[in-house]
Amino acid sequence: MRYQEKIEAAWTSSRSMVCVGLDPQLDRLPESIRSQPKPFLAFNQAIIDATLPYACAYKPQFAYYAAENRLDELRETMAYLKEKALQRVLILDAKRGDIGSTADQYAREAFEVYGADAVTVNPYMGGDTLVPFSRDAGKGVIVLCKTSNPGSSELQDLVLEGGNPLYLEVARKAAGDWNGNHNLALVVGATYPDQLARIRAEVGSMPLLVPGIGAQGGDLAATLKAGLRPDGWGLMINSSRGIIYASGGEDFAEAAGHAARELNDSCLELQAKFRKGTPA
Amino acid sequence: MRYQEKIEAAWTSSRSMVCVGLDPQLDRLPESIRSQPKPFLAFNQAIIDATLPYACAYKPQFAYYAAENRLDELRETMAYLKEKALQRVLILDAKRGDIGSTADQYAREAFEVYGADAVTVNPYMGGDTLVPFSRDAGKGVIVLCKTSNPGSSELQDLVLEGGNPLYLEVARKAAGDWNGNHNLALVVGATYPDQLARIRAEVGSMPLLVPGIGAQGGDLAATLKAGLRPDGWGLMINSSRGIIYASGGEDFAEAAGHAARELNDSCLELQAKFRKGTPA
Repeated sequence: MRYQEKIEAAWTSSRSMVCVGLDPQLDRLPESIRSQPKPFLAFNQAIIDATLPYACAYKPQFAYYAAENRLDELRETMAYLKEKALQRVLILDAKRGDIGSTADQYAREAFEVYGADAVTVNPYMGGDTLVPFSRDAGKGVIVLCKTSNPGSSELQDLVLEGGNPLYLEVARKAAGDWNGNHNLALVVGATYPDQLARIRAEVGSMPLLVPGIGAQGGDLAATLKAGLRPDGWGLMINSSRGIIYASGGEDFAEAAGHAARELNDSCLELQAKFRKGTPA
Repeated sequence: MRYQEKIEAAWTSSRSMVCVGLDPQLDRLPESIRSQPKPFLAFNQAIIDATLPYACAYKPQFAYYAAENRLDELRETMAYLKEKALQRVLILDAKRGDIGSTADQYAREAFEVYGADAVTVNPYMGGDTLVPFSRDAGKGVIVLCKTSNPGSSELQDLVLEGGNPLYLEVARKAAGDWNGNHNLALVVGATYPDQLARIRAEVGSMPLLVPGIGAQGGDLAATLKAGLRPDGWGLMINSSRGIIYASGGEDFAEAAGHAARELNDSCLELQAKFRKGTPA
């Protein structure tokens, strides 16, 4: 299946646009989990089981596993997702980017070692560094465009000769020259709805991964208004801390399920309000 | 010791500006190494032993270990370097870059899990994403500026309002606002000597890590002419494939030693030609 079809199927079969970020930190896990031999895996499995009905995608963030030297638990989490989260999109959030021969190795890491459906990548080094990731049309390449952090303006909003900001040039290339296999997507932070609207206008129906709701302060209504396609889909709304740490206690999984359902309910209400075409 | 002092001491004590890239690929290792239980570690140890007199720095590329799920051998290689390669700079080439809370985790990965002295990072997300790496003045942060690959022009050479290319704006920020702890350096490809000269003029004495000599076709004389400081140092000239695969046979270590020595001899000859001040 082409990546493009996979993500469209994930939205319509799950009736969800929520992406659950799996970013475990040892000191934030409840005692019963922290004392287990594989705490990140145990935590993730409980979160996945509880949120599955309300999620179209899962996104483990590589750094949290790498910092604890627990990449085996990342692999086991991906294997668990592969088995349980059927028809969901599995995103490895690793923000890779390197010259071609090295990017070949990073593509193997994401798609073979971890079995991801898609990986986040950084465009600074140019389109040739994306090719190793996008070569397989069945795999997705999610390119950083306008990121959610306060300092993202520093380079991404720099104005180019001709008047466009850098992030819009990235969007233009991602929707054009770089997208020969139609498997590119973009990262656009919920903290920048005006830029999100400009990007949506530039890239047509391209899927956008949107972090920044919740802990980072992005506004959900402004985000969906700015970013939804006329058919009411087109966005993966990521929440990490807002879901996985909805409760720090032993009811963490139940609380995560509630938080994911509430977020998706809010998304679907806003979808009904903002979509322009026939419901998909 | 501050990172800045560490790198200056590495140059003057080793009388070398060669950085050896440790990028092992299973199918390129000689049979006697490939059949060992830890082939990457065995290969690296032999390369390190043979090149040590001619190197100021070592730079394992994370991707090669990640793609083979051999990150334990990367850790063991770093530990071996820590023990043997005294006064050399240990660079983890991982090109990290993420929002602050995630970058904290990547800094722990580089400096705690792998014990690196410095890590390569991508500036696209902005200066706030570099802070977790640069907080400790004893650690180095090597920021991508003008990379060696053919497609690096696509974004890095885009001309901004005011007339400067993006890469020069990155150099300007790296030498200015971002460099409060004086521990930043830049990656500048040997394949772009004109841009290297502009960057050197912009950043003063800042250390530059220069990939692209050898397999990628960068010219050594043009690179040193464009990038050396008046004192004859300031550059770490990286060679990976040109050294580690100097021979594909059982004499690989000896050949790597020869290649590193030849490269450094060439560098020192050019240094004598191009330096302007008193020899350091």
